[in-house]
Amino acid sequence: MLSILETCLYAEDLEAAEEFYTRVLELEVFAREPGRHVFFRCGSGMFLIFNSAATQNPASSAGGVVPGHGARGPGHVCFRIAAGETDRWREKLLAAGVAIESEVHWPRGGTSLYFRDPAGNCVELAPASIWGLKETP
Amino acid sequence: MLSILETCLYAEDLEAAEEFYTRVLELEVFAREPGRHVFFRCGSGMFLIFNSAATQNPASSAGGVVPGHGARGPGHVCFRIAAGETDRWREKLLAAGVAIESEVHWPRGGTSLYFRDPAGNCVELAPASIWGLKETP
Repeated sequence: MLSILETCLYAEDLEAAEEFYTRVLELEVFAREPGRHVFFRCGSGMFLIFNSAATQNPASSAGGVVPGHGARGPGHVCFRIAAGETDRWREKLLAAGVAIESEVHWPRGGTSLYFRDPAGNCVELAPASIWGLKETP
Repeated sequence: MLSILETCLYAEDLEAAEEFYTRVLELEVFAREPGRHVFFRCGSGMFLIFNSAATQNPASSAGGVVPGHGARGPGHVCFRIAAGETDRWREKLLAAGVAIESEVHWPRGGTSLYFRDPAGNCVELAPASIWGLKETP
């Protein structure tokens, strides 16, 4: 496996999710289908939010059948930020009215900021150093 | 956001998950805590499998409180493979006794292979071309 190509979370209210991830987290919408999904590009991969009520059953397409999936309850994602950008993101989150649920200072170095998206998913911002990974562009 | 740093799925049977993702998908274990999680490195990010029964409540650590999360039901992840490796992976999956649930040929080019992990999560292997993204190492 070269990398993760698609990372998914689920949300019933896709409009709220789109508003949150674009306004607060500065992601750009790649595609949307009202009631089913909103997709964002993020670095070299895709961040996908699905409405599990719409994706739990297989979907036919011209190119084949897309299998069903759809989890419920709070999932988790961590977005990579640059080392040194933690303070800026903390300020931005607070200015945007997002409550920071927790901050964790990791043994390998680096701090995680944790907060919730509108669907209750646990979102984290952290530098690559928390995993001992190199900081890449 | 520079990229996705952590992509998560959930599984009750972490030993089965570890066996599957190492033997079939050739990932290497980065860390494990029996009953709670098994972590894999994947490219420039981390692929994390949690037992939601263990992670649904916050966890204290020396560096701060890690918030609770934990979804139930089938999630989804797509791993990026090299263009031209689809045939090799199809053969490997079949040789490993993994049923291919579906194949989808995408308008932008590239084929997705879909199958289930032992927990029922929907796993996909695809090249970056399905999203119109450049193939990177």
